[in-house]
Amino acid sequence: MNLLYFLDLLGTVAFAASGAWAGVRRGMDLFGVLVLGMVTAIGGGTLRDLLLGDLPPFCLQNEIYLWLPIGTALLVFCAHRFFPKIETPLLYFDAVGLGTFVVIGTGKALSFSIGPLGAVLLGVMTGTAGGVLRDILSNEVPLIMRREIYASACIIGGTLLVLLRWLGAPNEVSLLLSASSVILLRLLAIHYNWSLPKAE
Amino acid sequence: MNLLYFLDLLGTVAFAASGAWAGVRRGMDLFGVLVLGMVTAIGGGTLRDLLLGDLPPFCLQNEIYLWLPIGTALLVFCAHRFFPKIETPLLYFDAVGLGTFVVIGTGKALSFSIGPLGAVLLGVMTGTAGGVLRDILSNEVPLIMRREIYASACIIGGTLLVLLRWLGAPNEVSLLLSASSVILLRLLAIHYNWSLPKAE
Amino acid sequence: MNLLYFLDLLGTVAFAASGAWAGVRRGMDLFGVLVLGMVTAIGGGTLRDLLLGDLPPFCLQNEIYLWLPIGTALLVFCAHRFFPKIETPLLYFDAVGLGTFVVIGTGKALSFSIGPLGAVLLGVMTGTAGGVLRDILSNEVPLIMRREIYASACIIGGTLLVLLRWLGAPNEVSLLLSASSVILLRLLAIHYNWSLPKAE
Repeated sequence: MNLLYFLDLLGTVAFAASGAWAGVRRGMDLFGVLVLGMVTAIGGGTLRDLLLGDLPPFCLQNEIYLWLPIGTALLVFCAHRFFPKIETPLLYFDAVGLGTFVVIGTGKALSFSIGPLGAVLLGVMTGTAGGVLRDILSNEVPLIMRREIYASACIIGGTLLVLLRWLGAPNEVSLLLSASSVILLRLLAIHYNWSLPKAE
Repeated sequence: MNLLYFLDLLGTVAFAASGAWAGVRRGMDLFGVLVLGMVTAIGGGTLRDLLLGDLPPFCLQNEIYLWLPIGTALLVFCAHRFFPKIETPLLYFDAVGLGTFVVIGTGKALSFSIGPLGAVLLGVMTGTAGGVLRDILSNEVPLIMRREIYASACIIGGTLLVLLRWLGAPNEVSLLLSASSVILLRLLAIHYNWSLPKAE
Repeated sequence: MNLLYFLDLLGTVAFAASGAWAGVRRGMDLFGVLVLGMVTAIGGGTLRDLLLGDLPPFCLQNEIYLWLPIGTALLVFCAHRFFPKIETPLLYFDAVGLGTFVVIGTGKALSFSIGPLGAVLLGVMTGTAGGVLRDILSNEVPLIMRREIYASACIIGGTLLVLLRWLGAPNEVSLLLSASSVILLRLLAIHYNWSLPKAE
């Protein structure tokens, strides 16, 4: 499915840019910026493939998933003065990447005969583990565990895909619908500044 | 062996409760509490299965190991006001979980033809890596590396199992004896506040 | 190739010593020191084997890679008063280990039909991921992402090996030449205090 592949690459670039930018802001050197860009972009999918036992992982089988994040991180490193200007559009691409990663992850898990809960979890992991690794490497409490409903959007999207598949909906329709729901929820969450409850 | 399976599930619940409680105390939102509960409960066994190449790991093959931690974490999140009352009994269940996880891990490694030292290490990892991941995600130095003889109990239990197997002791007896030794040592360590030497 | 195996063991000891020493300085107990020593010595190669799907990893197939770090860490723990005296020679052994780990990792990746960029990355990872894990477990921003051209030396060495193999150079010559280039660059970097540019 070519549209999904295109969205996947777009998301990879957006995730790499946000990871590299985190490295620049924290005063890391070139290597640190490259590592953070790559880890953010491909960490989630790599962890998913490790758990599925589909090794070597996707990024070692198709090296475009290595070249794209490296190129993006280099660009962010060199042109970081202009970064603030693209920060808002980047949030949109980031949402697109999130939705795409989640449905690719959930879909792949289902095709490996993982159960419904495990498939949703692997989808959420595909979308979010890269950012968690980025935060661990930067020595911060992962953002996703403190703020925003980032993860809820992923859980809803993954669950929707499992349900649609179970109902026998056509493959492409299910993927697009589920991805769109994540993207929409994510954008609404940014716009209205939603957040999950804390224990009080 | 049904008793071991029951103790394993009991330990999973106890570990999930302690992980979720750590998330509540650190002011995490619902998602963070769920992640910490799950990671603490299944992180050790998952890492063991990754290293053994037995993929997908146990928790993706039997989804009860996903539902139990999620349910437990939800409960802790909602009823966290009552948590302090169950903190002491929880320590006992936690010790039971520790012993069970260690012998399951060591036993599984032996059945995968791992050498004696590797088998003990994988057993210790099964019992302790979940807590280490919990601390890394909370941005703290893993507790186990700073305090208490938590790990020593695991090492002794794993070594005992390797020895008993090597001596040809019956399977069930070896497992129960080794698990009991971990549980006992852990409870004694709590009671007498033992700790390992530091380099001075 | 016996020389490479000897250098590999030498590097394992040097990495274990530096990891254990980090634990001693941070006031960890015996178990923490053992874990940091082992993780630093075998973490990189283990992560490489996980990603290549070559499981169980090298250290569980040949237990000398477990006994050596444990013995080294124990020695550092007991004799840590004398450690400052060996800190400078240790840096040399550390450089030897770095070069050896990188070429072993890159070479193994190539023999698993990984592409050129992936092979270099896995080589760099074999040399550096142990130290990154050590820093994560100590709750610090990984040193490699903040300072020095440690990683650049690895990248250059890995790339050199890929090129030499591609040009059809004999296996042993390629390995020794690439490893030597890493070692030399690393020692020069220490001596002249080189560092990578930061984004300003």
